[in-house]
Amino acid sequence: MAFPGPIARLIEELNRLPGVGPKSAQRLAFHLLGRPAEEARRLAEAILAARERVRRCEVCCDWTDAPVCRVCSDPRRDATKICVVESPKDVAALERTGRYDGLYHVLHGAISPLSGVGPGDVTIGRLLERLRAGGVQELILATDPDVDGEATALYLKDVVAPLGVRVTRLARGLPEGGDLDFADELTIARALEGRREL
Amino acid sequence: MAFPGPIARLIEELNRLPGVGPKSAQRLAFHLLGRPAEEARRLAEAILAARERVRRCEVCCDWTDAPVCRVCSDPRRDATKICVVESPKDVAALERTGRYDGLYHVLHGAISPLSGVGPGDVTIGRLLERLRAGGVQELILATDPDVDGEATALYLKDVVAPLGVRVTRLARGLPEGGDLDFADELTIARALEGRREL
Repeated sequence: MAFPGPIARLIEELNRLPGVGPKSAQRLAFHLLGRPAEEARRLAEAILAARERVRRCEVCCDWTDAPVCRVCSDPRRDATKICVVESPKDVAALERTGRYDGLYHVLHGAISPLSGVGPGDVTIGRLLERLRAGGVQELILATDPDVDGEATALYLKDVVAPLGVRVTRLARGLPEGGDLDFADELTIARALEGRREL
Repeated sequence: MAFPGPIARLIEELNRLPGVGPKSAQRLAFHLLGRPAEEARRLAEAILAARERVRRCEVCCDWTDAPVCRVCSDPRRDATKICVVESPKDVAALERTGRYDGLYHVLHGAISPLSGVGPGDVTIGRLLERLRAGGVQELILATDPDVDGEATALYLKDVVAPLGVRVTRLARGLPEGGDLDFADELTIARALEGRREL
């Protein structure tokens, strides 16, 4: 059945969201129609407000509603360390650990020759400016442990080398709470390579 | 980590949607921030337009962007049959079968004494008006096969009885394509009760 125009359009737009198939899009659309109008309006306005007021931090490129984000403007953070991540989601994940007190740099992507994403398409230029400005002693590469993240880390290691900054990469190994026999071969191989004295 | 205000608010609103937990809400919010502004604006506008332009059909109470919905205003539909469903989703599900040519009536809920939903909270009054107006020969009760749907069907059967309209209920039994031994006891019991001559 063809839905009336405005419903069809709403389903279509919801269907563009990641992880929302045609069936969920329909369920969400019907939910928004069935709830008080106020609730639907609040969601629409939250989307518009976020797009209008959220921008990239002038220093680390993470999302913020001020010129400089909260982490970059917090004097208690250790400005000698910069942790490089692919996306703002990764900053949130690292902050949740409560174990990192340095600064971040958000690349907004990863270098991916296969998808045609080169160094100029991510914020590496801005990162190099930060490093050249001095004061940074360690660059922690926390790009994803996949092909693109690895390529990006290796590229960064090369371009940063002349600057004399220590470059580290997050450890690879077995995830906490897992079963050894459920881990894939590559993860086990990496865990063996990276084994440490107890 | 506390997200900047506009992001936190967007995550909170997305989190209200059915099936969207805190983690998915965050993923959706970051997606909307990462895509072209145009895409986020289109979603927000589709939500507002749907809420503004979609109303209940004056006849069957299904959602429509006209005073009377497409099914009710289609002269090819058999106006002697009305199929009663709980929600507009159910109309869509029945239409997808392509096997029903009658009209619908959307209750927008089910009678649920436990949740305090009485006959006055659904569109039963409007349904009785339609039946009293004459011309309807069969009322097909397609409320959900659960406690509330069953209670609603029994209530409707009683109030419709004096009007001399034939009242039927969708068949209960094994779903197509399933395994008999995977079906629950109640479904198997219903399938036995409703067995038919081959």
